[in-house]
Amino acid sequence: MAGDPALKIGLADIEAARSIIAGAVLRTPMLPAPKLSALTGAEVYVKYENLQVTNSFKDRGALVKLASLTDQERRRGVIAMSAGNHAQSVAYHSKRLKVPATIVMPVTTPFVKVAATRSYGAEVVLHGETVAEAEAQCEEIKAKRGLVLVHPYDDPRIIAGQGTIALEMLEEVPGLDVIIIPIGGGGLIGGNAIAARAKRPAIEIVGAEAALYPSVWNALHGENRPIGGPTLAEGIAVKNVGKLTLPIIRELVSEVILVDEAHLERAVNAYLTLQKTMAEGAGAAGLAAMIAKPERFRGKKVGLVLCGGNIDPRVLASIMVRELERDSRIVSFRLTIPDRPGVLGVIATRLGSLGANILEVDHRRLFLDVPAKGAKLDVTIETRDLAHAEEIMAALAADGYGPTRLEAGAAMD
Amino acid sequence: MAGDPALKIGLADIEAARSIIAGAVLRTPMLPAPKLSALTGAEVYVKYENLQVTNSFKDRGALVKLASLTDQERRRGVIAMSAGNHAQSVAYHSKRLKVPATIVMPVTTPFVKVAATRSYGAEVVLHGETVAEAEAQCEEIKAKRGLVLVHPYDDPRIIAGQGTIALEMLEEVPGLDVIIIPIGGGGLIGGNAIAARAKRPAIEIVGAEAALYPSVWNALHGENRPIGGPTLAEGIAVKNVGKLTLPIIRELVSEVILVDEAHLERAVNAYLTLQKTMAEGAGAAGLAAMIAKPERFRGKKVGLVLCGGNIDPRVLASIMVRELERDSRIVSFRLTIPDRPGVLGVIATRLGSLGANILEVDHRRLFLDVPAKGAKLDVTIETRDLAHAEEIMAALAADGYGPTRLEAGAAMD
Repeated sequence: MAGDPALKIGLADIEAARSIIAGAVLRTPMLPAPKLSALTGAEVYVKYENLQVTNSFKDRGALVKLASLTDQERRRGVIAMSAGNHAQSVAYHSKRLKVPATIVMPVTTPFVKVAATRSYGAEVVLHGETVAEAEAQCEEIKAKRGLVLVHPYDDPRIIAGQGTIALEMLEEVPGLDVIIIPIGGGGLIGGNAIAARAKRPAIEIVGAEAALYPSVWNALHGENRPIGGPTLAEGIAVKNVGKLTLPIIRELVSEVILVDEAHLERAVNAYLTLQKTMAEGAGAAGLAAMIAKPERFRGKKVGLVLCGGNIDPRVLASIMVRELERDSRIVSFRLTIPDRPGVLGVIATRLGSLGANILEVDHRRLFLDVPAKGAKLDVTIETRDLAHAEEIMAALAADGYGPTRLEAGAAMD
Repeated sequence: MAGDPALKIGLADIEAARSIIAGAVLRTPMLPAPKLSALTGAEVYVKYENLQVTNSFKDRGALVKLASLTDQERRRGVIAMSAGNHAQSVAYHSKRLKVPATIVMPVTTPFVKVAATRSYGAEVVLHGETVAEAEAQCEEIKAKRGLVLVHPYDDPRIIAGQGTIALEMLEEVPGLDVIIIPIGGGGLIGGNAIAARAKRPAIEIVGAEAALYPSVWNALHGENRPIGGPTLAEGIAVKNVGKLTLPIIRELVSEVILVDEAHLERAVNAYLTLQKTMAEGAGAAGLAAMIAKPERFRGKKVGLVLCGGNIDPRVLASIMVRELERDSRIVSFRLTIPDRPGVLGVIATRLGSLGANILEVDHRRLFLDVPAKGAKLDVTIETRDLAHAEEIMAALAADGYGPTRLEAGAAMD
């Protein structure tokens, strides 16, 4: 394997990692997902890493790294820089093993993530506006206190730990044609590419990277696409490519697919509504790649690593409502109505008889831009589907209310 | 066992049912749920029946019943009355076995449920405003066409099929002290009580029934509590007690706990935010019983049957947002502001500097009840937690805006 040190991580290391984590990290379910198969035209199986204790795959690598420490290193403790799932996994398994853990996070980290990490007993140091500033602080504390760094991806033990997933997947479904794996720093895809290709050389490993953060794409294709911006997949929003992971990806991964925000959002929603499971943006990236390029996978036996479920409830609620709006199951429109007593009651009754469930009403009686003796009424209703929504709009038009459809949520703007 | 025909369903029937469904119904995961353990003070394990193909346990009994048909019965077909999970399971497995299926539903059934059932190839007959009217229609079609009725719970094969869940649970976690099982018609708890008590006589079986539908509670306690009303747990909102299931419950269930709507809502939210999985109200009833009576289960090894995940996305989104409001992570308040240009900008900037994320603003400049030269501004913000919300309110009070907290969602009413 070309003499590259990264590629010296082999199946034996991953099998050793598996013995280390046995009993302390969940062997998560690997299940057929017939509704996702119907959606994509492939035969889809899902590995539910969101059911790990800290709700992401990061538990695996973190434990393998912690288990490798000498007694002296254990006493001194470990340090990590992370605002996300890696922080929680390092904190959780450090506590289990009674290793003092320090986690450095940018000051902008959402409070819930700080609280979750502290709840596992780690010392959280909030420092810097950016990841780079937090990293510098991490390096400084590490040197000063003589701590061991637990890197989120660029470490052979982390890579070997994450690779245990593919061993479990192939034991459950030996005939997989493809495994699609989200790419952030590359630890997850690196370890699993090594394990899967060693066990089943014919298998394809496909990466799913956020289109806003095409770091590995750029490195592989010699391109210079812009990197940055707000993404639903903050768990894989990584600007730098791993020194150890990139050579593995070059060697063993057949293709990287870039997924945009709309695909990520649809994938999160599909996991929720079809599979009844909660995926964070990064966790849904593999399914997003299938939604983006269904023809690429049609008819194949595809394994998806649902690698994390830590999504903000408000973001998830908003994704669900937006999907209902796209399906016209929630519709907003503006009516022009005569401004006389009782009209609101007449319209509400009419909507009820049409089978519409009224969610919000804004009666703009006092606005200055309405004709004298007229008023605007903004209504948001729930319908059965697009056909039902159109039927309701047509009925209101026939009644003379001149309904005009508003953008989703606009009734309340 | 008292010579009662219902109690003649025994472990052998349930083990036979298990061979019948093997390979055609998922052996769902049974996993430790450490975060639910931390929430309740017990050692909690969850059986994920929401991961079945139709997302509920109903697949099990339906298939056992369908597999028992004679060739002639198969050709004529089956009929069922259900607006819920039972309809989808009968439709799905009938299609698999090429048995014609007719499903009778009340005309008020939500369109998505009709569509889901039709998507599995069943003929859906919409009839009657009530369940009773639909049942009468079901009986009429059954007689006329010579179909076999697939009852949702009062049938020995259905009961035996549902009982296969406990066999799987006890194989994974043999030392369970208690299994808590939602009660609707009693098929789920009946079958599993027989299986679990046969395999492990010391185990306790506890039922969780919706407080608005205390049919079994009334029968067991000789009470006459009112039955009815809108519930989040429509899957167990059953007015009649099963003729076969009630004697089993009497004999083998140690206690029935009534769960009210607030507990159901908290349980659905806990499954989502802590376990990253989607439970319908009925599916979360067991966890709701633990939340209602934590002392009853403290320190025990508890198995929960998460029996279904078919919850309306809009209901789920609303539950999530309400929980954020209860935690003061979403807060609405009304400010009194001087009505001059630029004030809105000043306040928005101030809120930003306090770390509040503005979700909604309603600037009531034109309202008639505001003092001349003054205006009301209703604001909904996202905060980190209650302490943060209070800090923001205090800062706005010190600024002279006289903030008054509004009821959740009231800013837009």
